[in-house]
Amino acid sequence: MQWTRKHLLGLEELSPDEIRFILERADSFKEICTRPNKKVPALMGKTIVNMFFENSTRTNLSFQLAARRLSADTLAFSKTGTSVAKGESMVDTALNIEAMGVDIMVLRHGASGAPWKLAKHVKCAVVNAGDGQHEHPTQALLDLYTIREMRGRIDGLTVGIVGDIAHSRVARSNIWGLTKLGARVILVGPTTLMPKEVGRLGAGGVEVCHSIDHALQECDVLNMLRIQFERQGAANPFPSIREYIQMFGLTAERLRKGKPDLVVMHPGPVNRGVEVAPDVADGPQSVILKQVANGLAVRMAVLQLVAGVE
Amino acid sequence: MQWTRKHLLGLEELSPDEIRFILERADSFKEICTRPNKKVPALMGKTIVNMFFENSTRTNLSFQLAARRLSADTLAFSKTGTSVAKGESMVDTALNIEAMGVDIMVLRHGASGAPWKLAKHVKCAVVNAGDGQHEHPTQALLDLYTIREMRGRIDGLTVGIVGDIAHSRVARSNIWGLTKLGARVILVGPTTLMPKEVGRLGAGGVEVCHSIDHALQECDVLNMLRIQFERQGAANPFPSIREYIQMFGLTAERLRKGKPDLVVMHPGPVNRGVEVAPDVADGPQSVILKQVANGLAVRMAVLQLVAGVE
Amino acid sequence: MQWTRKHLLGLEELSPDEIRFILERADSFKEICTRPNKKVPALMGKTIVNMFFENSTRTNLSFQLAARRLSADTLAFSKTGTSVAKGESMVDTALNIEAMGVDIMVLRHGASGAPWKLAKHVKCAVVNAGDGQHEHPTQALLDLYTIREMRGRIDGLTVGIVGDIAHSRVARSNIWGLTKLGARVILVGPTTLMPKEVGRLGAGGVEVCHSIDHALQECDVLNMLRIQFERQGAANPFPSIREYIQMFGLTAERLRKGKPDLVVMHPGPVNRGVEVAPDVADGPQSVILKQVANGLAVRMAVLQLVAGVE
Repeated sequence: MQWTRKHLLGLEELSPDEIRFILERADSFKEICTRPNKKVPALMGKTIVNMFFENSTRTNLSFQLAARRLSADTLAFSKTGTSVAKGESMVDTALNIEAMGVDIMVLRHGASGAPWKLAKHVKCAVVNAGDGQHEHPTQALLDLYTIREMRGRIDGLTVGIVGDIAHSRVARSNIWGLTKLGARVILVGPTTLMPKEVGRLGAGGVEVCHSIDHALQECDVLNMLRIQFERQGAANPFPSIREYIQMFGLTAERLRKGKPDLVVMHPGPVNRGVEVAPDVADGPQSVILKQVANGLAVRMAVLQLVAGVE
Repeated sequence: MQWTRKHLLGLEELSPDEIRFILERADSFKEICTRPNKKVPALMGKTIVNMFFENSTRTNLSFQLAARRLSADTLAFSKTGTSVAKGESMVDTALNIEAMGVDIMVLRHGASGAPWKLAKHVKCAVVNAGDGQHEHPTQALLDLYTIREMRGRIDGLTVGIVGDIAHSRVARSNIWGLTKLGARVILVGPTTLMPKEVGRLGAGGVEVCHSIDHALQECDVLNMLRIQFERQGAANPFPSIREYIQMFGLTAERLRKGKPDLVVMHPGPVNRGVEVAPDVADGPQSVILKQVANGLAVRMAVLQLVAGVE
Repeated sequence: MQWTRKHLLGLEELSPDEIRFILERADSFKEICTRPNKKVPALMGKTIVNMFFENSTRTNLSFQLAARRLSADTLAFSKTGTSVAKGESMVDTALNIEAMGVDIMVLRHGASGAPWKLAKHVKCAVVNAGDGQHEHPTQALLDLYTIREMRGRIDGLTVGIVGDIAHSRVARSNIWGLTKLGARVILVGPTTLMPKEVGRLGAGGVEVCHSIDHALQECDVLNMLRIQFERQGAANPFPSIREYIQMFGLTAERLRKGKPDLVVMHPGPVNRGVEVAPDVADGPQSVILKQVANGLAVRMAVLQLVAGVE
């Protein structure tokens, strides 16, 4: 296969072969990340700009570091004020920054679809680092990479995604990636946190289960989503944190009821003791820090592919 | 000619030959900026610090990127609080940062004259990235570069500068640069936005016109200044934005009354629909994004010249 | 001697030989910092992260620049909010950043002991850039380096540390370093600014003197601590700034009563006219800017040593 896409916008539009191609490319960068000298000259003389219209420490650092390890020059532009958050001025800002000679823009934006809008206006490559409640493709790619690393394959596995599916771009991108690569996906959470469009998600459909205890018995992997306390606003979708923990929190006791090699994932940062109990987060089945490490390799692969250099 | 200046502080003090020398040097960097690998080792091992005592996203990014493309190490220091905005402590801060082994300081400061004050105290080179309402030499240089690129020359052209001349360092630096290189300059705006010292501006004098429609018929270039809504404070110099647009906004209709090859410039960021109508800003006569691109080449030239390396 | 430590946490735990080893290593980097090309490839491909949980412009810039001159990739992470300031989440944040493949973490934190806690959890090297009121080892090392540079030795010298000893990590680290290398240390300040544990400070003990005029006659070096107006809160330990200046401020008049070659130091930033009069700070006996310059050489040495490369 040859990589032909200019942008990486979402997993919904990628073919299974394209997803597998990225994961395989990430293998070689994973090896590089274990060397004493973790730097390669692949993108020497290229300029990559992180344009973050939403706060994010980890994704921002991960993309910056990925770019540096490829020897690219990086610029970081952050604006969270409302004036720039408007669609039109995001494009205006981007066109001005692009004019400085930018090769790749990594965009995080609160509005779903913003990266597609940007890609229509700029000549450089666009990588979606999270758009509204829509997609977060590199997070899903690193999740897929980690599952494949832990279990040798994705096809045929059962993956539970637990928590606030409705508001989660991580869930949406994971659903597309997992179903395209042949996994069975079970969404676990209260009805209030299930998306309305659940019937149209994924390639071939997903299942819904309101009990983590039931889902647990079927799953090879559990991806515990972060409760975005800051996003949910006034209309609290569950009565209390205490009740959420009781119903959906992954405790050691609960974990013992699942398969012995169940893989525990979380996109981070973990609300320790809420989505995942501390001893589970730090326990042998957790791959949370592996996910972060794999994020570097996956993002290096994505940046190199959209840069169009070999 | 040989470049002999240690600093780049303002265009008032440069000779026409010095200005032309910078523009010619920028030609070679412009070519470099179009290569796949936009990096040159000219300033390898040099340290350039951006010291911004006023907010600025674009100029800051442009200088940082220019420095990186020259392979310099860059540090960015921003402080907009009032305590550091005082003259004395700016010098103190600068002396401390200089002691870390800095080769060039790029200074933006709200006080007119701050870069000259800094240059007296430090041993490293100083580049003025905008001081108060006084000068913004690299902006004017990139404007000159763009005019020369579009029209092949500056000598003999008529350039209108439209808007808030009184508060504009962009206007002041442009006036010096344009008149020194032989252009005729017409300042266009209401009396309330004309500087009191208008008779002393430029080499050989400038004209004033209160009607953009009259000026338009004479001009080869219109440089539409940004209305700095944030700067004007309580004493509003014009009755309303609506009236400003009606009197001085560059609409498509107005543009049709000018020369067919009139060049439309704006230092950005454009208040779309105020200084320039959206269809004009995005239209074929607008060179707004070219200005941004040329800014990189001009700033690379300036940094390399003041670094004193060949 | 061979360097065997993984971390640089504090001077209390270093042997005199280890301290001397760092100072000697810094000599070679000092030489490099005077070259036109100040960059060496020592840490090419290594990643150094500045994690600053307290505001700091200078120390942050100094460590960043030291890392760049060693050709390392640098990332800067700052968080001053209270949520992350809690011990547990600092470790959590650090583990996540470490997972991206970090070689050295440079930590500044408001809690005394935070770097030791971090070092227990991460596999990478940790450098303490200031922890609470406990230690600031690289500041003390650059102070020692500067004294040795000015006077040729440290052993046998008498060094006065003046001001708010109680709240000062600079004082604590200096006391350990100076006494281990054989200097006599006199702490100068009002009783209210003396630490309660003064009897247990330093190797071999320190003296206390409440009059700068008395201490001045004995001292070869005076290290004037910064009054941290922002730290002292409601319970003001001295009646007024005016009175502080009168009792402990280093004026030109006072300086004339000391040895003619007395060396005046200050960790910066100076409250000019408070701890040190402006003419003294800028005078021939002041080495304040030398301290800043030496900071680069010392930090390059520390980063190279803990990186474990030759």
